[in-house]
Amino acid sequence: MSLPESRSGSSRGFIIPVGGAEEKVGDPAILKRFVELCGGSDARIAVIPTASQLPDTGTRYEEVFKDLGAGRVRSLPFESREDCHREDWLHKLQRADGIFLTGGNQLRLSTTIGGTPVAKMIRTRNAEGVHVAGTSAGAAFLSEHMIAFGQEGATPRADRVTLAPGLGLTNRVIVDQHFRQRGRLGRLLAALAYNPFAVGLGMDEDTAGFIGPDARLDVYGSDAITIIDPSHVQYTSMDSAHEDEAVCIIGVRLHILTEGASFDLHTREAFAPAAVEIGRASCRERV
Amino acid sequence: MSLPESRSGSSRGFIIPVGGAEEKVGDPAILKRFVELCGGSDARIAVIPTASQLPDTGTRYEEVFKDLGAGRVRSLPFESREDCHREDWLHKLQRADGIFLTGGNQLRLSTTIGGTPVAKMIRTRNAEGVHVAGTSAGAAFLSEHMIAFGQEGATPRADRVTLAPGLGLTNRVIVDQHFRQRGRLGRLLAALAYNPFAVGLGMDEDTAGFIGPDARLDVYGSDAITIIDPSHVQYTSMDSAHEDEAVCIIGVRLHILTEGASFDLHTREAFAPAAVEIGRASCRERV
Repeated sequence: MSLPESRSGSSRGFIIPVGGAEEKVGDPAILKRFVELCGGSDARIAVIPTASQLPDTGTRYEEVFKDLGAGRVRSLPFESREDCHREDWLHKLQRADGIFLTGGNQLRLSTTIGGTPVAKMIRTRNAEGVHVAGTSAGAAFLSEHMIAFGQEGATPRADRVTLAPGLGLTNRVIVDQHFRQRGRLGRLLAALAYNPFAVGLGMDEDTAGFIGPDARLDVYGSDAITIIDPSHVQYTSMDSAHEDEAVCIIGVRLHILTEGASFDLHTREAFAPAAVEIGRASCRERV
Repeated sequence: MSLPESRSGSSRGFIIPVGGAEEKVGDPAILKRFVELCGGSDARIAVIPTASQLPDTGTRYEEVFKDLGAGRVRSLPFESREDCHREDWLHKLQRADGIFLTGGNQLRLSTTIGGTPVAKMIRTRNAEGVHVAGTSAGAAFLSEHMIAFGQEGATPRADRVTLAPGLGLTNRVIVDQHFRQRGRLGRLLAALAYNPFAVGLGMDEDTAGFIGPDARLDVYGSDAITIIDPSHVQYTSMDSAHEDEAVCIIGVRLHILTEGASFDLHTREAFAPAAVEIGRASCRERV
């Protein structure tokens, strides 16, 4: 699967992993920002509820996005690989300003959409400037290398995380979701240890990373993103550890980023939140 | 509480945090190494079961250490602060070559022993060369700053970890135990963020760090130690985050160390396991 490049003259759309369980009523800051980014009252948003087993996931997001002022919202419930060839739905997808993949099971997404015109169109449209967000399973699926499933716990173990090809919007990151809530540091470290070129994004619930065309990730939401940067790893025992054995890894860099903080996926630099509240003004001096 | 220095001509004993649930039958590698370090068949070992609420914890360790060939083993069940002035037990403690603190509740240890002749004697004897190990709550208690309790989960949160003064054998580390098993990265990061001078030791079960007089920690056991080195932290929001809010931390270094690996608490360098098995010989070249 080749990674799409931005076409000449156009910049790629945002790629937006969300850690799951994002606020939908009350203060739905993440979904609101997504709608605004896509054009607000002019925005046409396509929802892909394929990951979910619940029949109303698509229509529920239709209502949420409409309540947030999106111009047009349409759920496209691709349930089979055959569905992924439906011209009427592909036409809707073609015209969307924003595409949103719901939560559920990321293997349902990859087995249903992978290799079909739907996957190809999402990649092409993102390269052309359309914004693509995914929550929970939808977030895991966005990148080239996706965590299919794995064992939980803080320490990485051999043969306890399984990667699968994802949608392929970027290969710079590997995403894990419900991160704080489910203790997934170990499986994300194990996924990165196979080949320490990508950056790990441990996404907490109700927290999103808005990755811009300049490869800068901005954090939004109520919790945090744990950034795992393995580019300075000096050693791992991943090639020799036996099944279920703890894996030795030396030289990981880790940042916990909250709303307002950002991370440059090119230079791998983290930036602290700007001091916006009066009570926090003094923090800025420490950066 | 002042930190004891080695007396002239003598080197301090090992400080040995164990992550809890160490193997006691079958292949009790950690306890066996402790007995050997203390002198094997010549070793006099004092067990302090104060942290535990179970009546047989002390006698159980007496049996385990005897089975491992220790010369003399004696449980000293200090249950009250008054007990901590008993001359006969203090005399036994004075003569021990190794002291072992069992698991249970670290606040029971600190509230019972803290500020008594028992705490003072353990510090003095460790400075004179006696080895001191603690498992689980006993491990937490060893250092100057101890995690008393805290919320679990991967992301650090404000006001969700409580530190208390510990035994004070070293202030170089803050220990957390049952690390992988209970998802404690967040609370250890939060504890370190208050003042990023110490190194965090996230101790998995059945895993020990043998910290020598040269401040080098060697890993033993079946799982891993997660080393959290905050000395390069550029920013934390710990001073301004509201209660239960995620804390932003930029610039943490992290190593997952398995048996045979080591960490220099002076220079903060990690070293990979030496290649001992034939099948692993090639790993050494990559270090």
